[in-house]
Amino acid sequence: MASLVNCVDSSVTVMSGILKAMNFAALKHSFQKRKDAAGTPYINHPIGVANILFFEGGVKDLVTIQAAILHDTVEDTDTSFDEITANFGSEVTDVVKEVTDDKSLPSAERKRLQVVTAPHKSDRGKAVKMADKIYNLRDLQKSVPIGWSIERAQQYFSWAQKVTNGCRGINSNLEQILDNLYSNGKII
Amino acid sequence: MASLVNCVDSSVTVMSGILKAMNFAALKHSFQKRKDAAGTPYINHPIGVANILFFEGGVKDLVTIQAAILHDTVEDTDTSFDEITANFGSEVTDVVKEVTDDKSLPSAERKRLQVVTAPHKSDRGKAVKMADKIYNLRDLQKSVPIGWSIERAQQYFSWAQKVTNGCRGINSNLEQILDNLYSNGKII
Ligand SMILES: [Mn+2]
Ligand SMILES: [Mn+2]
Repeated sequence: MASLVNCVDSSVTVMSGILKAMNFAALKHSFQKRKDAAGTPYINHPIGVANILFFEGGVKDLVTIQAAILHDTVEDTDTSFDEITANFGSEVTDVVKEVTDDKSLPSAERKRLQVVTAPHKSDRGKAVKMADKIYNLRDLQKSVPIGWSIERAQQYFSWAQKVTNGCRGINSNLEQILDNLYSNGKII
Repeated sequence: MASLVNCVDSSVTVMSGILKAMNFAALKHSFQKRKDAAGTPYINHPIGVANILFFEGGVKDLVTIQAAILHDTVEDTDTSFDEITANFGSEVTDVVKEVTDDKSLPSAERKRLQVVTAPHKSDRGKAVKMADKIYNLRDLQKSVPIGWSIERAQQYFSWAQKVTNGCRGINSNLEQILDNLYSNGKII
């Protein structure tokens, strides 16, 4: 995954790009909470996903980090892909597109599509997908969302594993974390 | 304010420093909301203050940006200065200290101290203080917080002006924005 650890951007470009993406996502997710009992602000999730990519995955590619920060804005808020392109360019948009479910489809079909499309995503898309699942699996281990049975949480683990199996081969750090989660980390 | 526009940090240092501060602040402010009717997540505020500094104030100094992201963690959450130092170093902590009220003091005394101490703060502390006030004044213009009278909001404008008058001379961009807010932007 050489392209995701290159450092071609200047420090000012990086500062600008991250601050702008953070502010954009925070405003867009303002009214949204995570599904946990504590009602954690939704923006904590994309911030956490970007942190997993950088600090645990070693991903230093600005486009990937911005896409991680923005990854749920189109799926979960009124944001359009055109808005992402206008603010962050087409490279970031391409990654966000790769990790955005089509909410017009039934939930089961969206889940099936995540599994079958994963192997065809770009390295950037695969990296964001893996970090997203790591965050969500850790969240599930901490507390099962309101309204979820233990079985539903277990099924999320099994399904996530099918998705991330399709993302293998581009980041061994993230793969190792996922393998540990799947082998040791199931909810009991 | 030459020191606040230097770009001595590498892009990886900047990416690391901003992502870590964002995640730290988001976790610390998880259970806190802004005082607006919408109940905006508190983390939107420090993210917004950092954005004002960079995009409107032209401040590119990583220590200042990190201090902005962290500026309310000690005042409003269980965070200690030692924790800030352990995670972000003494330079960031020094700025956070400068913009942290002593909550053991009565509110009126804290407000008086902000006015009298402002001129003695570092350039970094002054910049964060101005951006913080810009964010809060714009918030007040959008909607008066729950439980606040119009008079209380007006008094906030007058008090903020006394504080930021003590911060003049280090960033003409931020000063101009504040001058416009004070002359045109009062709540009517
Ligand atoms: Mn997500
Ligand atoms: Mn503040």
